[in-house]
Amino acid sequence: MPAEAAPRELRVELGERSYPIRIGPHVLADAASYQSLRGRPLRVVTDANVAALYLEPLLATLGLSAAETFVLPPGESNKSWANAERVLDWLLAARLPRDGVLVALGGGVVGDLAGFCAAVYQRGIDLVQVPTTLLAQVDSSVGGKTAVNHARGKNMIGAFHQPRLVVADTAVLGSLPPRELAAGLAEVIKCGLLGDAPLFARLEREMERLVGLDPEAVAEAVERCCLLKSRIVAADERESMDGGGPRALLNLGHTFGHAVETHTGYTQWLHGEAVGLGLCMAADLSARLGWLARSDADRAVALVRRAGLPVKPPPGMTPAHFRELMARDKKVAGGRIRLVLLRAIGEAAMTADFDPAQLEQTLLAFCAAAPAP
Amino acid sequence: MPAEAAPRELRVELGERSYPIRIGPHVLADAASYQSLRGRPLRVVTDANVAALYLEPLLATLGLSAAETFVLPPGESNKSWANAERVLDWLLAARLPRDGVLVALGGGVVGDLAGFCAAVYQRGIDLVQVPTTLLAQVDSSVGGKTAVNHARGKNMIGAFHQPRLVVADTAVLGSLPPRELAAGLAEVIKCGLLGDAPLFARLEREMERLVGLDPEAVAEAVERCCLLKSRIVAADERESMDGGGPRALLNLGHTFGHAVETHTGYTQWLHGEAVGLGLCMAADLSARLGWLARSDADRAVALVRRAGLPVKPPPGMTPAHFRELMARDKKVAGGRIRLVLLRAIGEAAMTADFDPAQLEQTLLAFCAAAPAP
Repeated sequence: MPAEAAPRELRVELGERSYPIRIGPHVLADAASYQSLRGRPLRVVTDANVAALYLEPLLATLGLSAAETFVLPPGESNKSWANAERVLDWLLAARLPRDGVLVALGGGVVGDLAGFCAAVYQRGIDLVQVPTTLLAQVDSSVGGKTAVNHARGKNMIGAFHQPRLVVADTAVLGSLPPRELAAGLAEVIKCGLLGDAPLFARLEREMERLVGLDPEAVAEAVERCCLLKSRIVAADERESMDGGGPRALLNLGHTFGHAVETHTGYTQWLHGEAVGLGLCMAADLSARLGWLARSDADRAVALVRRAGLPVKPPPGMTPAHFRELMARDKKVAGGRIRLVLLRAIGEAAMTADFDPAQLEQTLLAFCAAAPAP
Repeated sequence: MPAEAAPRELRVELGERSYPIRIGPHVLADAASYQSLRGRPLRVVTDANVAALYLEPLLATLGLSAAETFVLPPGESNKSWANAERVLDWLLAARLPRDGVLVALGGGVVGDLAGFCAAVYQRGIDLVQVPTTLLAQVDSSVGGKTAVNHARGKNMIGAFHQPRLVVADTAVLGSLPPRELAAGLAEVIKCGLLGDAPLFARLEREMERLVGLDPEAVAEAVERCCLLKSRIVAADERESMDGGGPRALLNLGHTFGHAVETHTGYTQWLHGEAVGLGLCMAADLSARLGWLARSDADRAVALVRRAGLPVKPPPGMTPAHFRELMARDKKVAGGRIRLVLLRAIGEAAMTADFDPAQLEQTLLAFCAAAPAP
């Protein structure tokens, strides 16, 4: 048996809020991952699905008991204000002191909710993210966005609260349903498209290895994405108010994608699936505007398809639906839709300065009943 | 009628989070106070008592309608997680955008709760504090501490969220009940004791003018306190984790005071009253340790008494009560009580390195049935 690759470690540079990201197979149950927490009181938040698979090894590694764990029911609907209150009640009952640490073990729902609780418990305690989905490893666990949902919208209540440490165990991805893995790959492709052309080229060479969870390919992809994200976060920690800072580029594909998620009531499409389609649509519009070669837009669509992701909107969704939902986007400023578009593979920019007729063409092309070429 | 004094303005220097504090009579209803907010969507949070007195002039000045106001029931018990949810629901129903501004009109309860809502609404929107009590003007509205209470303790859930602007109208203090005014004066005396010897000397000269709400004396005292607080906050924005940073000095008198508040169930003593007694006890202990001249400790007690504040614990409260409650303080580290004590009038320091027998002497002296000399 070959020796396992050493964990990769990179660092998000945010002055006194800087933190390491440790990436690799089996880092979740490696005591070395948590060395910096030695002697501090810890509590774990997770969900029932993840708990069944990974809670025991984590507790054993941290020297904790099951009583020091809060287990949420799984699912996006549990990322709620009411559950944040339950977690806070539990932390207060346990009298976790201000130098205590909250460990979030799970996907984006657990990370966002536990992160929000860590942000507001006694005005903020330390947070460790142990993301167990590809989406969380490459996106939500890094960068400090925490939130809960509200009946009136996703992530409407939250805080910026950087973790102290991120432990991304790539071996756990083997337990992900293939559809969730594909959804995570959408964010990986997004990273290549918006800021890492070599990553994009690598994905074109080895998408099937990623889908098959080749350990080296997965660890490399997670590391490249975290590296890109950490650079963007370091340049624009709190997403500048006007929405025009570097962090906004991470929304590539999201305005189209959110329209699909909202249209389908957030129950049919996974976030990553919607983002994958959004990448295709953003690339198509970029080509129509002459920003991007048509052949490069086609490469984006082909890669999304190879990841096993949909490249067409849901049946029955029309250009009118898109127009209506995109107009409600948070990034709308002065009545104009702002979109992140591509100037090249590996280079994105935000703009409100585009011909709406070209957007209409993109909507028509993607909403057509015929399958994409 | 003499022309009114021009408003005083000072600035809390926190880089891109810097903000002005505008102080003086009638600045609440002066459109110039809010110039920097022009054109932005605003919402106001207040309580029923304050609304009856000052909501109308504020709304008129800001050009808002009553529908753009959330009125809380008055009182500390309303600084709750449940009320934060109500305010957030209301903001979301109104679709206040991320460039919207929340205005907190009221005392510490309104400022802390509205501040917490501004901190977490869409991961943070701008906040304007319009404090209407002396305590809020000299203490809680400046510095960015926001919170709600929990059954298990005050301010247990919250965030650091600096305001964009503080508008401290000294003319509104005339409507304060004398007991609340005195409670605010405790924090003013605290400022003199911990970091502003000239302010302390001024208070000794004109305490009766302050109690009588002489406009010049009040504006000067509020300005000096805000200046001191802004310097401390600039040096230690988030109260360094070990609790040993400059911001901790603002807790002068608070460890003794919290013991009194907890002992009396937070219903009989106002926070400022408890702090006033705490100042006397901290000064006494400082003298017993040889840190402070006995005559200076006596000056502190005399000034607290002239403000109309109690200088003895409630009847029946014993040294044992103090010991038990002080041991639970958040500042306890490694089992040792840490106290802010005085090296001189105008100079405080935190220490855990003192003779417990001397603390016992202080507790005995203050808990004695006989009135203070």
